[in-house]
Amino acid sequence: MGKIICAGLGPGDPDLISVRSDRVIRSARHIAFFRKAGRQGQARRTVDGMLHPAAIEHAMEYPITTELPFDSPDYIRLLSAFYDDWAARLRTLVANGAEVVVLCEGDPFLYGSFMHLYTRLRADVPIEVIPGIPGMVGCWNVLGEPMSWGDDVLTVVMGTLPEAELVAQMKTADALAIMKTGRNLPRVRRALAAAGRLEDAWLVERGTMPGQRIARLSEIEASDCPYFAIVLVHGQGRRPVAGAPE
Amino acid sequence: MGKIICAGLGPGDPDLISVRSDRVIRSARHIAFFRKAGRQGQARRTVDGMLHPAAIEHAMEYPITTELPFDSPDYIRLLSAFYDDWAARLRTLVANGAEVVVLCEGDPFLYGSFMHLYTRLRADVPIEVIPGIPGMVGCWNVLGEPMSWGDDVLTVVMGTLPEAELVAQMKTADALAIMKTGRNLPRVRRALAAAGRLEDAWLVERGTMPGQRIARLSEIEASDCPYFAIVLVHGQGRRPVAGAPE
Repeated sequence: MGKIICAGLGPGDPDLISVRSDRVIRSARHIAFFRKAGRQGQARRTVDGMLHPAAIEHAMEYPITTELPFDSPDYIRLLSAFYDDWAARLRTLVANGAEVVVLCEGDPFLYGSFMHLYTRLRADVPIEVIPGIPGMVGCWNVLGEPMSWGDDVLTVVMGTLPEAELVAQMKTADALAIMKTGRNLPRVRRALAAAGRLEDAWLVERGTMPGQRIARLSEIEASDCPYFAIVLVHGQGRRPVAGAPE
Repeated sequence: MGKIICAGLGPGDPDLISVRSDRVIRSARHIAFFRKAGRQGQARRTVDGMLHPAAIEHAMEYPITTELPFDSPDYIRLLSAFYDDWAARLRTLVANGAEVVVLCEGDPFLYGSFMHLYTRLRADVPIEVIPGIPGMVGCWNVLGEPMSWGDDVLTVVMGTLPEAELVAQMKTADALAIMKTGRNLPRVRRALAAAGRLEDAWLVERGTMPGQRIARLSEIEASDCPYFAIVLVHGQGRRPVAGAPE
């Protein structure tokens, strides 16, 4: 019996992959990765030039839905069947002795798609998961400002949440990372403004990757909804000199 | 003129250092790291066996205080003078052409001590900061459970916060990471119990490192206050099948 190794890729710059993931990816004979049909996909792009010449690539292409909203029962059913299908295919590969490396952007256990395979396979397939630098960590690194200090509370929220809850979370956090922005960005802006945090918010698009863009959220066009972007608000440190050295 | 490179080390396992930090550390001729006086220190231990034979080591030893509480004005003054002193020493090294690699556990911009040097030096010294896998990411990886799904809110809090605020944060978050535990652990336990989260809380001590320990927080002795530990509560996913594929 083989096994599955999920290799966290980090924020996108291949130089920020961990030594262990790097080694596993370079020696893999089976590489699997999610992507939208018709695109190369960010995970596969990150490892370009790293793969073994004999590596067999398994592109796990999300079902295309131009008609179904992402949160409709039909779409969720379609997505669930898609994960079932790939879980079955990977199980067969492993049963035949293959070691399959599944690429995962950021850290696999932090809002990662791999978890949908993990929950389906963990009972009967050996799985190793290698952590990665989360995308948000890469994004606050490129801003070059400390993200959280002292006793700061750091809260990570999704832009898909209802506006009232976004406002509540933004008011009680010191440092903020907001993911799943895209077409939710207008709501995120309104919520940040209502919480008094808009002027301190930064947008990082494609952080650590080619085409990286940094902007103050308050200064970008309201119609501008970049695709691969995170919004960050820095903590100011509840105590200017952090307390006890660890 | 030389420069300073702050190399994020990740959670403690040297195999989880990024490819870039690994390369920078192995080729460094000047290595600086924080530690308590009389100890090797976790950062230095992580890079054991990796340093160049000609590397000059600069141990930045925290001032010892057996009498002063960590949050007293006197202690804060002492710590501030300590950072001033090391900022001046590093500035002199760089002015003389040295490239100094400063080691930093986890990610440097996430509650990292390096930030106290960074704010003192950034105006007149070239500084590059390499991100790392945060300690908490390494800790949830060793638990082998997805940390956050779908629209989960993930909140990072310090065990040093007042109990009422801990309870409030624990009630409004889905996934929780609690740092600076140690002697604050009894308060953290009470707050988790009050928020109805104690039964779901895990303690990870020395995650990814030799001597790693994992336990349900509710099952350890109340008097047990491990030193290098993080408490985690997993999110359950506000939507079982995460929404839009990125």
